[in-house]
Amino acid sequence: MKRVNGQPAEHLDLSNRGLAYGDGVFRTLRATAGRLLWWSDHAARLAADCAALGLACPDADLLRADACAVAGNADCVVKLILTRGGATRGYAPADGAVTRIAMAAPLPPHAQAGALPDVRVRLCDLRLGRQPRLAGVKHLNRLENVLARAEWQDPAIFEGLLCDASGWLVGGTMSNLFWVTQGILHTPELDQCGVAGVARARLLRAADRLGIPVRLGHWPPEALQAADEVLICNSLMGVRRVAMLDATPLPQAGWRARLDEALHETPD
Amino acid sequence: MKRVNGQPAEHLDLSNRGLAYGDGVFRTLRATAGRLLWWSDHAARLAADCAALGLACPDADLLRADACAVAGNADCVVKLILTRGGATRGYAPADGAVTRIAMAAPLPPHAQAGALPDVRVRLCDLRLGRQPRLAGVKHLNRLENVLARAEWQDPAIFEGLLCDASGWLVGGTMSNLFWVTQGILHTPELDQCGVAGVARARLLRAADRLGIPVRLGHWPPEALQAADEVLICNSLMGVRRVAMLDATPLPQAGWRARLDEALHETPD
Repeated sequence: MKRVNGQPAEHLDLSNRGLAYGDGVFRTLRATAGRLLWWSDHAARLAADCAALGLACPDADLLRADACAVAGNADCVVKLILTRGGATRGYAPADGAVTRIAMAAPLPPHAQAGALPDVRVRLCDLRLGRQPRLAGVKHLNRLENVLARAEWQDPAIFEGLLCDASGWLVGGTMSNLFWVTQGILHTPELDQCGVAGVARARLLRAADRLGIPVRLGHWPPEALQAADEVLICNSLMGVRRVAMLDATPLPQAGWRARLDEALHETPD
Repeated sequence: MKRVNGQPAEHLDLSNRGLAYGDGVFRTLRATAGRLLWWSDHAARLAADCAALGLACPDADLLRADACAVAGNADCVVKLILTRGGATRGYAPADGAVTRIAMAAPLPPHAQAGALPDVRVRLCDLRLGRQPRLAGVKHLNRLENVLARAEWQDPAIFEGLLCDASGWLVGGTMSNLFWVTQGILHTPELDQCGVAGVARARLLRAADRLGIPVRLGHWPPEALQAADEVLICNSLMGVRRVAMLDATPLPQAGWRARLDEALHETPD
């Protein structure tokens, strides 16, 4: 089920700037029996990401109605895409309206009930370019993620971790990265690149609520070797523990279950 | 007039990876009375750019047929877009076929006969992120160009020049940059970012043919102040002289006409 600007549709105009330039933002969220998980957080991020691109974000109720319409009563993934204006030639952004796209798809295996809480990850060779103007924004320019994900075919490897051009950890190709060292929750500062996911924002709020100290900063991948537990998260799968990074088994300290619960219990 | 995979079409499937991730490449070329200007160069760049993304580039004759079909006998701009595969969810590239999109549009004013040879440009505030894996490639991730072009509305300003994160000149938002200092043709090395245009490649060949010494490298914007003449070029407009950079008038030394002629006379 798909919709464009509130109407059932399967296709998009070829001159849309989302195709031409990736001139837009998106969000991937989980729907369960007609309920959108963490909707307020997703709506807030859409608004912030639109602002970063100078897009006029549509009203949150309109976006929610789009999402609900494509989700129906299914347990599914909803993807919302907002692109700038209609047909213009050239990079200059027109002042036109935003195109709203909503699509539903079945939950991927890793987001289904019974998916294992522990995963294997690898460190990718690709280094993310640093662009503070787009850092944190879930925009449609995702070729770096595609190139990084193309580095491996082994289905046993669930995710790839990425560093930026300076060698600092940023996150996974489709997840945010956390680790706990000596009781302190660490996560990369996303001021140069990366996507600031809703699960990440919620985990940071949860830690605050639970009194878990948090440190944001820039660390090399070696920091993970000293961690008590390494975790990745996103809006579809919640929190997963990294059991193995490349060929190195990583320790377990009980944080995954605790933080996954906190993630889900944190108010919107 | 538009085509998708060789058939007349106005729309694209919503699940296309060109929209989802900007997972593809494009080319903008000029057609005159059914003839595609510099086709061999464009075909070569499409093949090289596809290779950079791991895309299987369609046969050049097929792409040429697409371009000719949308151009007809008009004087127009043809845009060719190649995106990866069909519908897949997630960043992992499928091994699927490439989607071929061809569109024709009227020539923009600056590409029409009688457009002035001299232009005003500005230096943009946005700095391009450095990503060697994508440097030179004309891919669909063009948000930096959009953000840079959004920095000015004054129609008297034709183009914006961009530096990378290290402060080195890269080129314009829609053009490549050249300048002549003491008889030597200079242009930025595009090994970190930027788009290697067909007009740029042809100008470099033309200079070689004419015995004009060429220097590729990394320079700050101040290098332009010492130039005898500053030029920008692309496949639609040929070579234009930068008469004014922000508030600074730049000198004229007769290079524009000479290099524009050489650009057009250079064999494919």
